[in-house]
Parts: sequence; structure tokens; C-alpha cells
Amino acid sequence: MLYVIGIGPGGLDMMTYQAREAIEQADVIVGYKTYTHLIKALVGDKPVIKTGMCKELERCQAALELAQNGKTVALVSSGDAGIYGMAGLILELVSKQDWYVDVKVIPGMTASIAAGAVLGAPLMHDFCHISLSDLLTPWPVIEKRIQAAADADFVICFYNPRSRGREGHLRRAFELMAPYKAPTTPVGIVKEAGRRKQQHWLTTLEAMDFELVDMRTLVVVGNQSTYVDNGLMVTPRGYQV
Amino acid sequence: MLYVIGIGPGGLDMMTYQAREAIEQADVIVGYKTYTHLIKALVGDKPVIKTGMCKELERCQAALELAQNGKTVALVSSGDAGIYGMAGLILELVSKQDWYVDVKVIPGMTASIAAGAVLGAPLMHDFCHISLSDLLTPWPVIEKRIQAAADADFVICFYNPRSRGREGHLRRAFELMAPYKAPTTPVGIVKEAGRRKQQHWLTTLEAMDFELVDMRTLVVVGNQSTYVDNGLMVTPRGYQV
Repeated sequence: MLYVIGIGPGGLDMMTYQAREAIEQADVIVGYKTYTHLIKALVGDKPVIKTGMCKELERCQAALELAQNGKTVALVSSGDAGIYGMAGLILELVSKQDWYVDVKVIPGMTASIAAGAVLGAPLMHDFCHISLSDLLTPWPVIEKRIQAAADADFVICFYNPRSRGREGHLRRAFELMAPYKAPTTPVGIVKEAGRRKQQHWLTTLEAMDFELVDMRTLVVVGNQSTYVDNGLMVTPRGYQV
Repeated sequence: MLYVIGIGPGGLDMMTYQAREAIEQADVIVGYKTYTHLIKALVGDKPVIKTGMCKELERCQAALELAQNGKTVALVSSGDAGIYGMAGLILELVSKQDWYVDVKVIPGMTASIAAGAVLGAPLMHDFCHISLSDLLTPWPVIEKRIQAAADADFVICFYNPRSRGREGHLRRAFELMAPYKAPTTPVGIVKEAGRRKQQHWLTTLEAMDFELVDMRTLVVVGNQSTYVDNGLMVTPRGYQV
């Protein structure tokens, strides 16, 4: 049995009961080392197979092999395993490589939701997730999505906004939104949402400081109704208040 | 103190520890009756103020008044309180009506994530949330978002897809997507995700049965890479498998 588990942002308090139970039931834990560290209180003395970043395929195959050999395996992702996590790759491998493994995906709190609660209530109206990583997606596809989402006045959550090798992507995304969103559109920046080192900032499209952003940061750009009051970012749903 | 709490889809197993703790600490619980019923095991003999559907403003004001009078109040929403829930309205009321209340938003698992795990891994690539309720949003705004999202090849999650008074909205949404998404695009339908009566179906854009859908249903429409295999809906992220 292979549980593909979203552990949420990192703190045990934002994990679901179902995720916790699955980790406790597992014989062995597999995951990127930052994530296995976050849940070490639950893992106890179970064997942990850690792999580094960008070793997704290796990590998934290790988990499938253990499960096929009869182990109950917990493959952990931060956030939700089904959102830029490991669930898709596991299910692709199962269907294309003839593994005989039962897989159960256990959902978790994705970064946008955790970040939204920190900022106030910026996601109250239609919103989208866009990853700025072009490791697996052609950049023109990403550009088209940014423009379409800005033109249709979605709130936009940027995942993987910045890292070594693509410092300029977020700046380019802001240039692409500029024709559609006002310069004063509120922008929320949350680093390490839901973890002990959590930090957040409120700014605007025109005053954005890209240096605040790294790979562990989520950036939320408001729609045309979003406002900031008393340090909180709110997107009204349309109630007459 | 007012906790605005997302309880997740409904089952206690998909609630976070933080949400559970806040409910346990509260003096009084406020919420739409379906949601207060879902958490009755946690509520014990605390007073519960239930209100009916479409009484959002009344419910929020009741919660604020209790909190201003010194009670610790848990205002519960299903899913995440910050996604089409009560967090935005509470924060709007606090800033516009001069309530003196400390508010803490406690995030929860929204329906798309719970539904995604049931269907497989349909949300592995960029996706958006669109509510088809035009009670608070002009219908032309919704139409523009549907077209933009379909044109830019987002996976699309439809919230509030159908109810009495707007039976035709989902059918219209499918007509609007037709120029951009292939007729064979996979569609996942999840009713009562994460609850005991959960049901789900897989179909396609052209074979969609709108009669399966009600207000407690989430509809997920794939992107051009989404496929169904072995009863699971998967949107590949782009790994070479």
C-alpha cells in the first residue's frame, strides 16, 4: 500500500487527521529531506528514505518498489500532494510502468490556502494557481496563462515564483499583468507559510520588491476589488456591507 | 476572540488540528446548520447558533456581537473559510462597521483539493476556481473568466455549479469552453467530497450529464494533457515517464 500524502505547509497543526494516521500506519517514509524533517515527531524510529531536490522520479520509484514488496509506504509532499506534488507522477508511473501497487492520495493544505489565511481573505473570489517554474512547462504557455488570468480579473497565486536560474520570471509576470491590473492592485507575499519562520508583506503591483521572494514564497495578486485595510488583504465577494 | 474556521469537507478526518483546537476552545459555535451538524461530535454541549442558507450577513453579525461581548466564538464554514466562505465578509464588516473584535482565520481543506484526491491527480498543473453563482457576481464576468481559463488551457474547478434558479449555468459554461477544449477532455464530478455519501463519476466534455450535478458537487474539467486510466483522472506535470 502506498499513501501519497500532503502534509500541509509544515506545522503539525495544519496537517489533517487522515494524513497523520497514514504516517503512523506506515512501515517506511519516503520524501524530500525538508519534508521528512518537518514531520520527524510523527515518524519516530521508522526508516526514512530521503532524497534531494529534483530527484522526483527516483523518489517515486523507490516508494513504488517498497510498496510492491509488501511495505506500507508513506510518500510525503508538502502542501497537497496533488498540487505540483508527487500524486500525479505516482499515478502516471503506475499506469505506464505496470506497477502492482494500491495507491491512496491523501489531500493536504496547499500553500495558497495557508498563505491566504495569513494575509486575511484574498481568495474570496475566483482565483488561479500558476507555477512560474519552466523546468517542465514551456515558458510561452505560462505567459499565456498569466495574461489570460489577469485579463479576466482572477486573483492569481504564483507558485515557485523565483529560484536560482530564473530570477527574472516573477518580474516578467508582473510586466505581463500590467496592462490589465491597476498599479495599485494589492499584492501579498508570504514566505514559509504555516511554518515557524513565516513572514509576510503587503505591497502593490507597482511597488513590488522582487528581492523578498524565493522558492519558499507564495505571491498572491488581487483582483480589481481587492483592498488592504488594517494590515489585511481582502477580496470582497460582493455582499452589500 | 472570533475564530473563522474552515472545517474542511465535513469528515473530522479531513479537519486540521488547528481547526479542531479552536472549536474546542470556543464558548459558542456559529454556523449554517449543515456545517454545525457535521462537527457535532466536537461541539459537545456548547451553545450553537444555527442559521439557514443565504443568511450570511446575519450569521456574521451574530458572531461579531458575541465576540465583542467577550465570548470566544467559532464561526464555521465548510471547506476553507477564505474560499467562497465567511472570512472575507467578517473582515469587511470589521473594517467598515467598527467592530472591536480580534479575528483569526483558520484555514481548511477546500472542496477542489478533496475532490482532486478522490478523482486521482487532476490538479497537478495550473488550475483555477470559478463559482457559477451569479447571486453576487455579474454573469458576464463569470463568462469572461470561463473563456479565458479555457483558452489558456487551465484545469478548471467549478464551485456552486448548479442549483434551483440556475439550472442552465453549467451547461452554458460547457458551451463556452467548447471552442477551446477538445470534446474528449476528461471531466470529473464529485458529489459530497470527503463526506459519507461521497460519489464520483468520470466523463468527458461531450458526454457530460448535467443531471448528476447539484450544489454539493464539484466539477473538474481537465486541460489538454489530462487523461483517464484505470478509473483515475490525471493531469501530467511534464515528467518523462
